[in-house]
Amino acid sequence: MPHFSQKDINDMQHLYKINLINSCSGYKSANLIGTKSQFGHSNVAIFSSVTHIGSSPALLGFFLRPTSINRNTYDNIKETGYYTINHVHESILNDAHHTSAKYDKTISEFDFTSLEEEYKADYLVPFVKEAPLQLAMKYVEEYHIKANDTILLIGEIKDLYIKENLIDDDGFVNLSKANVASINGLDGYSIPKLKTRLEYQKPKI
Amino acid sequence: MPHFSQKDINDMQHLYKINLINSCSGYKSANLIGTKSQFGHSNVAIFSSVTHIGSSPALLGFFLRPTSINRNTYDNIKETGYYTINHVHESILNDAHHTSAKYDKTISEFDFTSLEEEYKADYLVPFVKEAPLQLAMKYVEEYHIKANDTILLIGEIKDLYIKENLIDDDGFVNLSKANVASINGLDGYSIPKLKTRLEYQKPKI
Repeated sequence: MPHFSQKDINDMQHLYKINLINSCSGYKSANLIGTKSQFGHSNVAIFSSVTHIGSSPALLGFFLRPTSINRNTYDNIKETGYYTINHVHESILNDAHHTSAKYDKTISEFDFTSLEEEYKADYLVPFVKEAPLQLAMKYVEEYHIKANDTILLIGEIKDLYIKENLIDDDGFVNLSKANVASINGLDGYSIPKLKTRLEYQKPKI
Repeated sequence: MPHFSQKDINDMQHLYKINLINSCSGYKSANLIGTKSQFGHSNVAIFSSVTHIGSSPALLGFFLRPTSINRNTYDNIKETGYYTINHVHESILNDAHHTSAKYDKTISEFDFTSLEEEYKADYLVPFVKEAPLQLAMKYVEEYHIKANDTILLIGEIKDLYIKENLIDDDGFVNLSKANVASINGLDGYSIPKLKTRLEYQKPKI
């Protein structure tokens, strides 16, 4: 089996390395995070690191690099305390991916894509109208990851909006019915189809 | 659009809630984490929370609940400092899922599945032989997540083993060539097919 040591990885050309290592965790989620600055500027950016942390309370986390393009997202969440998480589906792939471009904080990515901002209840932060699953999130806490100077930001689900017919009788959300995307590496997209659901497992002894 | 408030979620029947909330982050990675106790007992368990944290250095994180079934994984990593991350592919789905059963720490899941343990280089921790991508990981640090008493455990990639022909010229790993699985919710599995790779995006202004 071909093999790379830690030294091989460290010595790789930058683009080769980030393509390789970004694929090493396996398939990733594809989410648009919507925020608003304290001055009312909307922002929407794609993230592939949104991760389930717990169901009671319902918590999700994601990682961001304070010095990166996603600084706008972080700053806005710190300013308002709220954000939205919106699932990317097949028909908005290209626009969703375009939100990775480095726009200035005063520029809304909604103005340079066909993504439409939507407002619900009393939330000041924008949802992505086209998303089949939309979450209103409230900031809970953050952890500074010393190993590489990134931030894990954790929020709680305040409201969950989901298109009709995606939830099975037992609460399972069939993401493939909604043609939700999954990310491979930095720029690969799949629209997975559900193959099977497996039963709760008990020891064989 | 159907809607659930935070109160609705908190009031849900347990199984309905965990099915629903576990689907809310989107598609998840499917990884088998291999460990060994200080007394030499092998352990392998499926995780869906392995997340890319950074490429330079190459870091991955995952979440675990100290009181859960995965306590064995955590204890073993703390005892030896090492673990492996192995990608789940189509032909080992059922066995991979079975490792979620609650076996005692002295029992090896390798003995109750057809998964085969493999040893490489000087590592004492078991790799999963059938996995198309195998990572030797060294413990780096952990964070106690106060919001729900879970742990984020971060490790660095020490060695990366990958089957032939999965890496494109630019370092991109085509997971769909290897029939790697993705997880939807607690128990839904997909074998995604790569739809497209999109270009690096620059602002349109």
